[in-house]
Amino acid sequence: MVRALSVTALGLLALLCWFTCEPVQAGKILVTPMDGSHWLSLKILVEELSQRGHEVVVLVPETSILIGSSGNYITKSFAVPYTSAELNFNLNNVRKQALEKPPDIRSLFTNFGNLVKFVNLQVKGCEMLLYNETLMKSLGETGFDALLSDPFLPCGTIIAQKFSLPTIYFLRGIPCRLDEAAAKCPSPPSFVPRFFTGYSDKMSFAQRINNVIMTTVEPFLCQTMFATFDELGSRYLKKDTTYKELLSHGAIWLLRYDFTLEYPKPIMPNIVQIGGINCAKRDPLSKELEEFVNGSGEHGFVVFTLGSMVSKLPEAKARVFFEAFKQIPQRATDTDAVDLSFQFLPHPEPQAPEVFQRVSTRVSRPPRWMQGHPKVKAFITHGGSHGIYEGICNGVPMVMLPLFGDQGDNVQRLVSRGVAESLSIYDLSTEKLLVALKKVISEKSYKEKMTKLSAIHRDRPIEPLDLAVFWTEFVMRHKGAEHLKPAAHELNWIQYHSLDVIGFLLLILVTVIFVTVKSCMFCFRKCFRKTQKKKKE
Amino acid sequence: MVRALSVTALGLLALLCWFTCEPVQAGKILVTPMDGSHWLSLKILVEELSQRGHEVVVLVPETSILIGSSGNYITKSFAVPYTSAELNFNLNNVRKQALEKPPDIRSLFTNFGNLVKFVNLQVKGCEMLLYNETLMKSLGETGFDALLSDPFLPCGTIIAQKFSLPTIYFLRGIPCRLDEAAAKCPSPPSFVPRFFTGYSDKMSFAQRINNVIMTTVEPFLCQTMFATFDELGSRYLKKDTTYKELLSHGAIWLLRYDFTLEYPKPIMPNIVQIGGINCAKRDPLSKELEEFVNGSGEHGFVVFTLGSMVSKLPEAKARVFFEAFKQIPQRATDTDAVDLSFQFLPHPEPQAPEVFQRVSTRVSRPPRWMQGHPKVKAFITHGGSHGIYEGICNGVPMVMLPLFGDQGDNVQRLVSRGVAESLSIYDLSTEKLLVALKKVISEKSYKEKMTKLSAIHRDRPIEPLDLAVFWTEFVMRHKGAEHLKPAAHELNWIQYHSLDVIGFLLLILVTVIFVTVKSCMFCFRKCFRKTQKKKKE
Repeated sequence: MVRALSVTALGLLALLCWFTCEPVQAGKILVTPMDGSHWLSLKILVEELSQRGHEVVVLVPETSILIGSSGNYITKSFAVPYTSAELNFNLNNVRKQALEKPPDIRSLFTNFGNLVKFVNLQVKGCEMLLYNETLMKSLGETGFDALLSDPFLPCGTIIAQKFSLPTIYFLRGIPCRLDEAAAKCPSPPSFVPRFFTGYSDKMSFAQRINNVIMTTVEPFLCQTMFATFDELGSRYLKKDTTYKELLSHGAIWLLRYDFTLEYPKPIMPNIVQIGGINCAKRDPLSKELEEFVNGSGEHGFVVFTLGSMVSKLPEAKARVFFEAFKQIPQRATDTDAVDLSFQFLPHPEPQAPEVFQRVSTRVSRPPRWMQGHPKVKAFITHGGSHGIYEGICNGVPMVMLPLFGDQGDNVQRLVSRGVAESLSIYDLSTEKLLVALKKVISEKSYKEKMTKLSAIHRDRPIEPLDLAVFWTEFVMRHKGAEHLKPAAHELNWIQYHSLDVIGFLLLILVTVIFVTVKSCMFCFRKCFRKTQKKKKE
Repeated sequence: MVRALSVTALGLLALLCWFTCEPVQAGKILVTPMDGSHWLSLKILVEELSQRGHEVVVLVPETSILIGSSGNYITKSFAVPYTSAELNFNLNNVRKQALEKPPDIRSLFTNFGNLVKFVNLQVKGCEMLLYNETLMKSLGETGFDALLSDPFLPCGTIIAQKFSLPTIYFLRGIPCRLDEAAAKCPSPPSFVPRFFTGYSDKMSFAQRINNVIMTTVEPFLCQTMFATFDELGSRYLKKDTTYKELLSHGAIWLLRYDFTLEYPKPIMPNIVQIGGINCAKRDPLSKELEEFVNGSGEHGFVVFTLGSMVSKLPEAKARVFFEAFKQIPQRATDTDAVDLSFQFLPHPEPQAPEVFQRVSTRVSRPPRWMQGHPKVKAFITHGGSHGIYEGICNGVPMVMLPLFGDQGDNVQRLVSRGVAESLSIYDLSTEKLLVALKKVISEKSYKEKMTKLSAIHRDRPIEPLDLAVFWTEFVMRHKGAEHLKPAAHELNWIQYHSLDVIGFLLLILVTVIFVTVKSCMFCFRKCFRKTQKKKKE
């Protein structure tokens, strides 16, 4: 009865909205995406905005990994000074680093070095875009209402400044926590673990020390990472600026997490959580995949991916997975590009046809949402935020093999919630994989905890995609979201932390104490002398 | 077209919800309200929950100002050790203080003193409730799913602990900022003005100093204010506890503001803004009021209230308003209880009948939503949060006369946004009132800014009442909202601010410097001696 009432209420709300809601004017949105897996969820929002009647223009570098054109939105491509080969070389380094070396303190620096190289490459692309006069002129003349930008790449913020566009950011986070710094969001290091530390929100004293040190180091990391961009921004806009300063003009931050993945922490009024935005789409399965799924019977199947960036595994690594999949009663398939069957087909083994039928899907690549199919018993993943949310949305326990970026932290979060097991890819063996797989599949607690987490995640007043669309349109309607911008933006670091006030109050305190003590000593001496004089007399 | 799509989408969402949404089980909710105007909006949520099929039990003190029984929910009354006269005496003191004395530093202390007296009175009531064994036994046996509590009065938190009930708080804020402290919400004093200061979010250095001092004083104010309750809580629960500690167990904080009233500031994941929740209801007007409204013509009318706590004005004060209303082209009416006509009827003046028709509504009391009627040209208010939101919801500029509590701060917020004028009630004259009234009615900027503020306020993805219901039901479904609770609750004050870590790092730094300097001096001395020796040789 209550459910009926709720549905009726929502229906009535829809009807009421027809008469009372702020009418949504179709507008023009410029999109500056980040290439690679980041694009996967931004694309969902872009397509939705387009379907709601807005004119969406996406800026695409000519050398792009994943961003393609579409009938749903307009793309404008721009030349970049690097080739696909150069881009891939950079990415291959990242992959190699992740797959073959044990994670240690050096990997942090190597990761960071790779990140800086990647950013520098993109800054070169950005420069080409900004100084592409024809394109920039046409963009300027279009009269956009807002800019939708993935701020992992800084180019959007310069364009926003150039054309005075209110901006909506769409991201999972910037590694050196520049997003929180730019949004003036407090982030106490006592319970908000820093990127790459792998800590939970409950830290030991030693971990808190490291976390505070990391907090102190972060601004310098940011400075190094975006140094070339700071220079480009200042040069192009003809004023002394930094990426942090440009970022701080953002109207709304759409953050691709919620508190089933992330630990609870302070947020700002213009930070909106849209974790799970990528779970919505459910294209139908191909006939072959339907057969694969139905044929898996009561045992179901496991899904394997190392993300859109790992398209091929070294043979030895691939064999580890293949051997493990042969020994479990579940069927196995892979989304993304790690096509085990493709790798193993040239080497048929005696049991190949049967295993092939169980392990692979030759013709059609399974869609990503297969990661959360109701019959999936476990999901083997690198811990990218998209895959993780497919798992959370559908309550699938995971075996996780973090590679780089935020993945180590993501994995830590799910392991600490008891819904996943973590393994290292670099020294992975079939036995280790089998132990972990059997654990998450047969031990009930994993599935139970994941089902609970999933229920909490899905129990929300409004869907993440609708929320993202709402706030994008809000910014378009009101030319920003000024009422959500804290006055902290007008304070420098010392003022923000009230250090000037504390210093001033301490100074007064010290002065008062000093004067009091001196006065007392003076009086004491006077009295003492008088007493001595009297004694002498 | 786009609007049609949005509505269709919402409709589809409603349909989809039928199949996918977490089914809402009808549950049992215990409500511990705060008397007076606080009840006005909590009542809206209580009635809505009841209409959605939940069994709602409201605990009502026998001596109550506004909380009454209703067919929509169950009330359980309990004896209290004070009479209506005693309660009114206390409230009269507050009124008198506000109406007749100029606001200065002493009024802060007097206000605070009155508050402490009020809390102490309520604590006595709470004690009677807790030791009312029959009632408590019956409550314990009911098996409630959640407690909905206005934490301005502390009793609810003890009951929640006693029966292990997950709790939803419903409030505008606790004067000494105990709500933010209990929710572990950072609140930098550099841009978050403290209660009673009347500062905006943009403070001068001197104001920031005062704000920091106020921040330091707040915990002691809280301690004083709730001292009797700390004692009662500890005694009843048989463990050493404080109100802050008990409050910190709350699952969700429903806060009756949004950022069209409040300045943007950090929030926590379990803080939900439901500002404007009181604007929804629109009961039809009586025939007499319809005539009053329609008869006001193009000039419209002004509405006057000093809140539910001021039922009668001293004659001199009332005359100030009456005289002003006679001189403006707008008609005037009053909601709440300041019935000017009633006060002036015993003294008929020559123009009384005509003025009476223009100024008053004798038979039926205008409903509160008249404060935001489309034909209202200005709203004269004391700045209570309910009236303010009626004004914001409907875009009505205001003339504000703050009396006590959060009203001074509320008024400051609206004046700083250019949508209201502020006056002091204690030295109010007809001339001053006329100037302010004419200003907000005829100067376009007030109406324009208010219309913009209103548009922003009403442009939200979900209505505040639906949001409040959602989170209440969420807490009932999941027995709390543990995933939104920050780990900060496990840290003490020193740990939360990382003072132990900073101290430790400073100690190491000092030690390293000390050892380095000592070593250098040692080496220097060694070398120096050798050189001297050589020289001597």
